[in-house]
Amino acid sequence: MADVAGKFPPGVMTDIRVVPAKGGITAPAGFKAAGVHCGIKPAPAALDLAILAADGSASAAALFTTNLAQAAPIIVSRRHIEQTQGRARAVVVNSGCANACTGEDGLAHARKMAVDTAAALGCTPEEVLVASTGVIGVTLKIDRVLAGIRAAAAALARANGGDAARAIMTTDPFPKEHAVTVETARGAFTIGGMAKGSGMIEPNMATMLGFLTTDAKVAPAILRQALQTSARDTFNAITVDGECSTNDCLFAIASGASGVTIDGASYPALLEGFLAVSRELALGIVRGGEGATKLIAVTVTEARTIDAARQVARTIANSPLVKTAVHGADPNWGRIVAAAGRSGVTFDIDRATVHVGGILLFENGLPHDEAAPRAAEHLRGKTVQIDVSLGTGAESATIWTCDLTAEYVRINGEYRT
Amino acid sequence: MADVAGKFPPGVMTDIRVVPAKGGITAPAGFKAAGVHCGIKPAPAALDLAILAADGSASAAALFTTNLAQAAPIIVSRRHIEQTQGRARAVVVNSGCANACTGEDGLAHARKMAVDTAAALGCTPEEVLVASTGVIGVTLKIDRVLAGIRAAAAALARANGGDAARAIMTTDPFPKEHAVTVETARGAFTIGGMAKGSGMIEPNMATMLGFLTTDAKVAPAILRQALQTSARDTFNAITVDGECSTNDCLFAIASGASGVTIDGASYPALLEGFLAVSRELALGIVRGGEGATKLIAVTVTEARTIDAARQVARTIANSPLVKTAVHGADPNWGRIVAAAGRSGVTFDIDRATVHVGGILLFENGLPHDEAAPRAAEHLRGKTVQIDVSLGTGAESATIWTCDLTAEYVRINGEYRT
Repeated sequence: MADVAGKFPPGVMTDIRVVPAKGGITAPAGFKAAGVHCGIKPAPAALDLAILAADGSASAAALFTTNLAQAAPIIVSRRHIEQTQGRARAVVVNSGCANACTGEDGLAHARKMAVDTAAALGCTPEEVLVASTGVIGVTLKIDRVLAGIRAAAAALARANGGDAARAIMTTDPFPKEHAVTVETARGAFTIGGMAKGSGMIEPNMATMLGFLTTDAKVAPAILRQALQTSARDTFNAITVDGECSTNDCLFAIASGASGVTIDGASYPALLEGFLAVSRELALGIVRGGEGATKLIAVTVTEARTIDAARQVARTIANSPLVKTAVHGADPNWGRIVAAAGRSGVTFDIDRATVHVGGILLFENGLPHDEAAPRAAEHLRGKTVQIDVSLGTGAESATIWTCDLTAEYVRINGEYRT
Repeated sequence: MADVAGKFPPGVMTDIRVVPAKGGITAPAGFKAAGVHCGIKPAPAALDLAILAADGSASAAALFTTNLAQAAPIIVSRRHIEQTQGRARAVVVNSGCANACTGEDGLAHARKMAVDTAAALGCTPEEVLVASTGVIGVTLKIDRVLAGIRAAAAALARANGGDAARAIMTTDPFPKEHAVTVETARGAFTIGGMAKGSGMIEPNMATMLGFLTTDAKVAPAILRQALQTSARDTFNAITVDGECSTNDCLFAIASGASGVTIDGASYPALLEGFLAVSRELALGIVRGGEGATKLIAVTVTEARTIDAARQVARTIANSPLVKTAVHGADPNWGRIVAAAGRSGVTFDIDRATVHVGGILLFENGLPHDEAAPRAAEHLRGKTVQIDVSLGTGAESATIWTCDLTAEYVRINGEYRT
């Protein structure tokens, strides 16, 4: 992981220490969670409903999918957070059914999930955000969901963050949670998070489902800025299959329980913590991508603009020929060059270079075939670093993806039927 | 095939009859071909070098890949056809090695292929076009190729068109050739063609490799217009994996041997013949796509512009989730809606409809679940029709693709190593 993590933008303040913390979304003070089985997933004891609740009204921010087809919970949550102007008490999430393309009934169901969660917690329905993930176009078994909400509300505890992380999974092979404590001159605060993947992943404004909590005291506008900025190089810099979903959303909730206030001066500390947690969760989504066996970081340097760097990196990261070559540990830099060449970004192939695992495979328009065996050795590992330098400027960007395997085909050819 | 073929723009003249003809590139009068084994492909007798030659100097037109990384034969062929202002005597093609990213040596090799072919045929090197297909970044074994050129030149015969079609294959499961005779009031002429796929296929100006011949007498400018126009809805309307290659090219050569001259009045006859042959070859590339088991036609109607229709159709056709669902015969219209929704084209989901095999699965924002079993039945066939109506205009477009299978992953994970 060293080379992949090393690509990440370093912090901008020197008096900030970010240290790992135990747990996930309930690591920060002021939060409780629960995950229960309510019967949406067919497996008998599979957790499929989660509630994340702050102890009192909290600051909140959200990013939503840019897909034109927006699921009912997306529509309801966007409305709620607008109405509260960035306040929330809780998030209720079901897995196993996306509640997308479900018409008026779907909207009523999403709203009812908020109403019943609010009743159990003693807040307004607008203070509850709703998220769903699973199959599109299936009507939610709302009675089961509402029973699950009652059970989850009764089970809320700081110790149950892990249950919530498992309850939001669909085809994810493992739960994704992470937390850090940020130590600053003003005191320490904690940031926690959980996320789920693992197919239909090329978020565009948000991940499939992501949740960040903090016990810092943060105004909604600052929280939103930290969420947007940290998402750009984490959740919005990953792709499993180039698919942006109907249900992508990313929420942040700040309880203020640590007593540490975030303002202009301490904002970099919040951002750094958000980046640390978001990166871990986002890379977890890629590592747990459907059928994935390898994490691939594609870094493009010497681009004219950051957008150009991202576009080339994204084209390579979504190339099925590159992803299958990595799966087969084939140092096939030709496919990397071909993907870069069709990305729509203009550069001179003869000035570009390609490294795989730090090993130079292509420069001056020519291969370095003698290096191929060493690059193949790198590709046999679990973490793959691809670097492409365009030779046109000074900007760079990294996109993370996974290999494309027969297992991805199996999962998605059999997911529903 | 009836429903797929039915989507094709019908002819605009009523006095034209397009009837199937036997053979491929040598079906038109005035052409000879050969395919030989020269030792680039490892298999002992695998054909890997082809020459297509007109009996004399002929009109020619070409379309080349838009990928920034252009193979040496692309660079040489573009230069040659510019220098001759649209004349050619022959095309020489090798498979098994793309001669791409091979620097000055690669350019010298491509040029030498033209020089030696010209010497064997008694024309200028500029009258020879060159094409290569295979692995990128490997230096051509030029001595073997030049020996192959001598052997192929000696074997040129009208009967050997089928050998040429086999000699240009890489991972193609079958050769692709087709011919038609176009009967007009002025007389009949014939059009033949061959093409190869089968991975790295989302041509953008041309197919991987495509060759059309005709015995009509056509000025280069008219030939070029017919080639561009027919390619738009055939070779440029297919995708196997969204990958535009370094070597894509499409050539047309007109011998004039039929004595039928194409001018403004008879141009529609030429175009209709080009469309008929190109469609068959393009669909053959998709049917023979790497790992493909099904041909999928994605037709988008009621779009504001043709470009918008093509963009939505292309996004659906390249969606790995749609392609795997079709492979699994899962009528998962939700993935089709989600792909359309992220395509970048604006429309109202509630006014859109989705049909699979002519069966309505989605309208007014809601599913027609009762129809799913009949759609699944359609999906179990070899040819799949997906129709999406956007409800925003009157334009439409079709993109053809294939399903995504574990075999695609196997082929591309093991292709080189």
